[in-house]
This record gives sequence, C-alpha cells and structure tokens, in this order.
Amino acid sequence: MSRIVEITELALRDAHQSLLATRMSLDDMIPACEDIDNAGYWSVECWGGATFDSCIRFLNEDPWERLRTLRKLMPKSRLQMLLRGQNLLGYRHYEDGVVERFVEKAAANGIDVFRIFDALNDIRNLKTSIDAVKKTGKHAQGAICYTVSPLHTIEAYAERSEQLKEMGCDSICIKDMAALLRPQPAYDLVKAIKKRCGNETLLHVHTHATTGVTMVSLMKAIEAGCDIVDTAVSSLSLGPGHNPTESLVELLEGTGYETRVKLDRVQRISNHFAQIRPRYKEFFSENVGVDTEIFKSQIPGGMISNMESQLKGQGAGDRLKEVLEEVPRVRKDSGYPPLVTPTSQIVGSQAVFNVLMGKYKVLTGEFADLMLGYYGSTLGKKDPEVLKQAEAHAKKPAITVRPADLLKPEWENLSATANALKGANGSDEDVLTYAMFPKVALAFFESRAQGRKNVGKDPSAKAAEVKAESKAPAAAAGGAALRGKVNYVITLNGKEHRVSVAAEK
Amino acid sequence: MSRIVEITELALRDAHQSLLATRMSLDDMIPACEDIDNAGYWSVECWGGATFDSCIRFLNEDPWERLRTLRKLMPKSRLQMLLRGQNLLGYRHYEDGVVERFVEKAAANGIDVFRIFDALNDIRNLKTSIDAVKKTGKHAQGAICYTVSPLHTIEAYAERSEQLKEMGCDSICIKDMAALLRPQPAYDLVKAIKKRCGNETLLHVHTHATTGVTMVSLMKAIEAGCDIVDTAVSSLSLGPGHNPTESLVELLEGTGYETRVKLDRVQRISNHFAQIRPRYKEFFSENVGVDTEIFKSQIPGGMISNMESQLKGQGAGDRLKEVLEEVPRVRKDSGYPPLVTPTSQIVGSQAVFNVLMGKYKVLTGEFADLMLGYYGSTLGKKDPEVLKQAEAHAKKPAITVRPADLLKPEWENLSATANALKGANGSDEDVLTYAMFPKVALAFFESRAQGRKNVGKDPSAKAAEVKAESKAPAAAAGGAALRGKVNYVITLNGKEHRVSVAAEK
Repeated sequence: MSRIVEITELALRDAHQSLLATRMSLDDMIPACEDIDNAGYWSVECWGGATFDSCIRFLNEDPWERLRTLRKLMPKSRLQMLLRGQNLLGYRHYEDGVVERFVEKAAANGIDVFRIFDALNDIRNLKTSIDAVKKTGKHAQGAICYTVSPLHTIEAYAERSEQLKEMGCDSICIKDMAALLRPQPAYDLVKAIKKRCGNETLLHVHTHATTGVTMVSLMKAIEAGCDIVDTAVSSLSLGPGHNPTESLVELLEGTGYETRVKLDRVQRISNHFAQIRPRYKEFFSENVGVDTEIFKSQIPGGMISNMESQLKGQGAGDRLKEVLEEVPRVRKDSGYPPLVTPTSQIVGSQAVFNVLMGKYKVLTGEFADLMLGYYGSTLGKKDPEVLKQAEAHAKKPAITVRPADLLKPEWENLSATANALKGANGSDEDVLTYAMFPKVALAFFESRAQGRKNVGKDPSAKAAEVKAESKAPAAAAGGAALRGKVNYVITLNGKEHRVSVAAEK
Repeated sequence: MSRIVEITELALRDAHQSLLATRMSLDDMIPACEDIDNAGYWSVECWGGATFDSCIRFLNEDPWERLRTLRKLMPKSRLQMLLRGQNLLGYRHYEDGVVERFVEKAAANGIDVFRIFDALNDIRNLKTSIDAVKKTGKHAQGAICYTVSPLHTIEAYAERSEQLKEMGCDSICIKDMAALLRPQPAYDLVKAIKKRCGNETLLHVHTHATTGVTMVSLMKAIEAGCDIVDTAVSSLSLGPGHNPTESLVELLEGTGYETRVKLDRVQRISNHFAQIRPRYKEFFSENVGVDTEIFKSQIPGGMISNMESQLKGQGAGDRLKEVLEEVPRVRKDSGYPPLVTPTSQIVGSQAVFNVLMGKYKVLTGEFADLMLGYYGSTLGKKDPEVLKQAEAHAKKPAITVRPADLLKPEWENLSATANALKGANGSDEDVLTYAMFPKVALAFFESRAQGRKNVGKDPSAKAAEVKAESKAPAAAAGGAALRGKVNYVITLNGKEHRVSVAAEK
C-alpha cells in the first residue's frame, strides 16, 4: 500500500513569476485550465503579489477578473494564493480592517487556500489574516520562511509551526524561496514539525530548483512524512523556478509513495506552456542553470546584483567582497532576519553604506525601521549600540507591539479616494487594488476598458511586425525623419496599434 | 564519521558531448586543467568515441596528442575513457590484435581507467579489452547498460556484474545513458550488486539528467552503498547532460556522506566553462529542460526524431503512433536489446519498415545481423519465425560464437594502408586512428599540419561584427533614408523600440 503524496501546481503563479518575470497573460492560461482542473492536483497556485502587480502594471488586466475566470474554468480545483500577512500583496503594513476585507473578497472571488507568510516570520503579522481566512471557512496555511542562521534551528522552526497550528492554521508550509533547503534539514524539519504538531498536521514543502539540490530535498521530505509538495510542469520548471512535476511523479515509482496526478494531463499542460513560453523570451530569467554560490555566501543572487549596482553607482565597484563580508555582520546586528524581500534589500543597502561610509555612520530609514521593530520582531536580539543609533536616526522609539497595532482604521479613506478615481468601478475589489498599488491602480483604472494586453510575442507575429514596421514608415520616410515625429496606425495580426515614430536622438 | 563518496568529473568528455555536440577544443580545456587536477576527483573522464571522432572530423586535432597534453597537465589525476568493447571507438567489431594494440597505446598515452561496455551487454565483447587493460596494469571498469524490459531484472544485472568481476574487472559501472534509472531501482541495483559481488567491490553509477529524476537516483545509490558517481560542473550540466557536481557535493551536507571534492576548485572550473560555453552556442542541444516522455515510450528522444524523419521521407509522417507501438514488438522479437547506438537505430528502422511494408516483409541488413547474432547475444530469445526470415534475407546462418571470433588478424593490413596515407606519421597511434575512422582519418592526416581549429565563436567578436554593420548606416541617417536604411525610435504602447527601417527591396 503506497502513501499518497499530494502536489500543488505552480505554473500559473510562482513558475512564471520566477521564469518569465510574471508576464503571462490570462489568455495564455485559459487553454490549459481544463487539463489543470482534471490533473489531480491538491491545489493550483494562481494568485499572489507579483501576479496582481503585473496584471495592472503590464497586462492591463484586472487581477480580480483573472481570479474569477480561473475559478469558473477550474471548478473542481482548490485555487491557492500567496499572501504576505499584514502586508497583503503590497509593501507596507495594512490596518486590520483592510486585511479582513481583502481576505473576504479574495475568498468570495475564488481563493480556497491562503498561504500566509511574513518576511521576518513574525507570526503576529499573520494573525489577522489567519483569523479572517478561518471566518470565510477557507483553508489557512501558515508558512515559515526557511533561512540559515545560528538561531534558525530545527527546533525553532518546529516551535513556530506549533504556534501557527495553535493560531488555527489548517496546514503548515516550509517556504524555501532561496533553494537553501538541503536534503537532511528537509528530512529533519518535517520529522520535527510532525512530532511537535502531531502526525495528522498537514505539512507542505515549497522549494525552488535554483541550487540543484532540492529535488532530493523533496524526496527526503516525503520520506519524513511531508504530505504536499510544490512543483511546476516541466516546460515551466528549473533554473530559478521549481522542480518539474512530471519528474517528481516518475521518480516515486516503486518507492512506496505515489501521487494522484494523471501524467497524460500533466503532459498536455506542459506541452501547452512549451508552446507559449518562447513568446515571453524577452522576459526570460538569464540564469537558467544551477547556482550553488548562495550556499557559500548565504546571500541570494538577486541581492548580490543589487549591491553590485549600488556600489558601481558610487564608483566603488571593486568593493563587493568587503560588502559580502559585511552582510552577515549586519544581519547578526539586526537579529538574523531571513534574507527575502524586503529584508534582503534593507540589509544589503546597509552593508553597502557601512563599507563606503564607515560602520553605521549612515543608516537608511528602512534599516532603522527594521532595527526598531517597525517590520516586526526578529528571532535574534538586536545589537544595543546599533539600536541606539537607529533611534537617534529615526527620531522615534523602538517598538515591541505588532506594527499594525499602531495603524488607524483606513478603509473609509482608501475607499473614498479609490472611488473618486477615473475608471474606478465602485467595488470593494477596486478599493483593494488601489490600496495595494496606489499609483499603478490609478493608471490601470483609466486604461482598463481597453482590455487585456498580451505582452508575449508570437515569433511569427514578431517577424510580421518587423516587416510592417519597416514598410509603413518607408512610404513617408525621408522628410518626416528630419521633422521629428510621425504618427501611424499599424495593423498587426488584425489588431490596430498606434505607433509614433521619431528620428533617433 | 562520514562515508566518502567519490566523484568522476565528466566536463571534458560526456558533458560537452551531450551539450555541445562534442565540439570543445583542447584550447578551451587547458586553462581548467590545473583546477581539475587539484579538485579531488576520483577520476577525470576525457576520452571516448565521439571526442576522438570529433577531434579528427571537426577540430583538426590529433586525439592522441590531446590525451598526451591532458596527461601532462593533470599529473595527479586518474584519466578515464569510455571504450565500446570489441568496437573500440568505431562502429564495427575489431579483431583481438587491434583491440589489444589500442588498449596498450591508450594506456601508454595516458589513460588510467578504462570504462568498457557493449551495447547488447554481451560480456564476451568486453573480454579482450578487459584482459588487455589488466595486462597494462591499469584500471578495468566493466559497465552494464541500464535499460528497462521484462527480462532486465535486478537479479539479471547483479548476475552480469558478478561475471564482470570474475573476468577481472576492478570496478563495476551501472551506465544509465538514457536517464531511465529511477531512485528505487538505483537503490535496489546497488544493493543487489554489492550483495552478489561483495561489499568491497567498487561500484560506480553513471547517469544523465534528461528526465529530471536522477539526482535523486544518485542519492539513493549512495544510500545503498555506491562508491563513485558521475557528475559535471554546473556550467556544463543538466538537460541531456548530467547532474551538477557542485549540487551533489552540497546536497550531501549532514547526510553522513561526503565527497573529497574542493568546492572552490570546482567553482573555478565551472566559471571557466561558463565563459567558454556561449562560444559553442550553435552546437547547443535544443532540449535543455526536462523530458520525461521516455519513461512512457521507453524510446529515447533521438530515436523518435530519427523515425519521424524516416517516415516523413516516405510521405508517412502521420504514422508515427503506429511505429511507436511497433517498436516494443520488434524489440521483443530481437531479444530485448537495450535501445542505445547502434541498436536503437536498427530496431527503429525495422519498426518503420514493418509499419510501411507489412510485418517483416522487408528486413534491413543490420536488423538481420542483429537477429543472427553478428552484434552479439541478447538477454532474451529471438523470435524463431523472424530468425528464419533473417537467415533467408542475409543468406548466412545465425551464429552463437563471439562475433570477433570470425575475424582474421588485420593489424598488418591496417598498418600498411594507414602508413601509406599522405600525412601519416608511421606511429601505431595513426594506424589506430585510421582503423577507427578510415575516411575521416585520411582527410585529417592531410590537414593535420595546419594545427587545431577552435570552432567555438567568441560572442564579443560576433557582437562587434553586428555593431559594425548597424553603426555604419546610422551615421548618415536623414539623407540615407531614400538610399537605404534609417534608424528610428518607435513608441509602441508606451514602450520605446529601436527600429531600423529600409525601403523594401
């Protein structure tokens, strides 16, 4: 008798976020929905901060409408989203009323499983959303960001898991966004959490493929009793993305574990995205192989390139090594935050400043906030000297309360402002869109009526485009080129584009 | 106390054979040799049939000279080659005297470890080379091709391993060239072989990354007691290649297994090939992701595309499905040969003929030879009806002796012919080069004096070329419009595009 291992398919959210800069249009998802709905997945991840942002910023697509469409097209599936706790899908703490409203609306529009995490693993930042999910009757999954530090022991994670369970979470997720989770810790973590929380506690492992070790980690997690793992169909897998669904299913053969996933369906989904993917070539992540440097530096690749460009901007491109050595010290001083957005940027920038200006001679506002508890609490203690400097810099005291406790009700204000915007439709969903991304929402509401935009380019259409572009202006070329700008209407694949042409500066 | 797992580095042979069509020049290997020699590998694979062929066919490089150079640059390392038993590096059976001479010369020029296999796993085809290796005092490794069939049981492999050990092999290798080896069979195979051959028997696992499951298989093989595994530095890994060396080293942390490999050295090797690889872009394998279809069809990807093009050539491109269903039947009738070169092509072509012309109405000469034992014996019995047809077709009897037993001494002839060629240097090595690839050697001997050719193209040189082309017309913009080309900045949906416009020719 085999034990069943369940699978969450990431193709519609994290996979294209990791591989195609979150640019996939709903139009390219729709043809795969029937197969996804019938493939036997435990859940289908399809919504989150970056997909929401990308919808309104790049795709002129209403993210709520995307959700409703996916809901309609996948009636049998659990739809899953990633929620940043008190930050929701935005970059600041929201007042509880907004959090509650958001969860209610997400559930009403189609979300079944809410995976909720906080960058600092401060569970107080998860409480309001967990409670709100429970109120809707949906599945609340508490996620813990996996990181490596002297304080992040197996026992510390197990303890945090137990707290999440006590807060009412229906399942626990180990969220390994940097592919740092090696096989042995994966095994030990799952064992420890199951022991502490009870064997019946549903345990989910999320990991990326970046370092090339995590397929083995998934196997070890499964051997230790993990119930659900995250994968993506092979055509949207690997590199900074995830382990391939088909491979996970195949490798379990004969092991005493099996999935419910139907490989013929998965193959069809994969074939669909294999056809779609080349259209998004310009958004491809350049890093498609394996990167194990992060094990050595403990610093995510994206963070290193950020720091590099900061240094170059200061004419100090040769001091990266010093900065890389400074990062662990800054991290220690600030209580060992996991290095994920936004803490990776905050710690990285401060390390750059320390190297260029002298140790904590200059503090960034964000670093001061992190030191003073305005993002939440960290597992480690803050360095008292640096803490004093942060107070002096920010001219405000350190806090120990939950950051959102300091916020005043804001729904009425948000609502009034949002509803007054041109193109806003008066729904709570629009208010929430505005609340998440005020500037982007403003532009989106105005252009929404023009319908969604697919930024993926059919290679054959692209060839036609180049031809059309080179044909049209050629007619009026010579004279206009010297005058400046000419406006054309170009018909490309039956769709009209307004094109303005100017001579190169 | 951790158990040591040894690593064979594939970068210099199978990795660039699988990923860069075997095109890497010695010049691009030389800068990595010092790091490879000091990285702590058990062995360094650097020679084999395809590298030998590619040297003289594409790179105007003497493969023996390559070997001597690598020997000199890596004095501490075991250099390893892949030898196709009685076929040596060519495509026919050679008489024993040639086999002995080849092994002697390979050892004298620098090979320490000979990995010897036969496409049919007919160990009689390995005997002469194993004996020859033992005579030189070098390491003879007997390899078994891994395949899946009702007859290829764990016990059958264990029995074959024992026979190889009795023939004097210093180690046994499970050679999984199609990435079909799943984790559980990997575990079971290693356990069974160790049990049958004795725990002290050195066991080596070779596998490819193609299906995305084999990193887990390596882990399971290690848990079962496997001593050495094959990997390639990350910049030359994955896709149809192999699992990344760095990832294997990292994933063992904390498991009770460790390697001797020094990661800083491996990182430098990997960085070197990361810089080299883009130059060989035109030779890249297109398939860089994961392909799990082979588990379903049991037919290697390359074989399917061969059959497809054969069918299209006959105007029967729509009959692939029938052919795919016919392959397992042909394979059964011919005694379940593993589907590797050359048997994959032989079985595939016969399946195509069966579908197009009627079952065994037409036999290919090669299929008749396979049926009649001229490639060696198979694990399964041949179908007696088809055997009769093969005898009638080929007008020769089935044989049960070792195919090479029918060959007459050929060294004198080969030697006389080779030495008479223009540019031949009179060495035994040249005779062997001629013996392997007579036509290609002829051309190579003539052009050898011109020195080796690096077919990798420097991208910066290429970019400079493109730049030079696009720069020239820009300088003359306005007036040039009517003559030829103008460069514009086109704003399309708010995004700037640089477009060069030319009047249509």
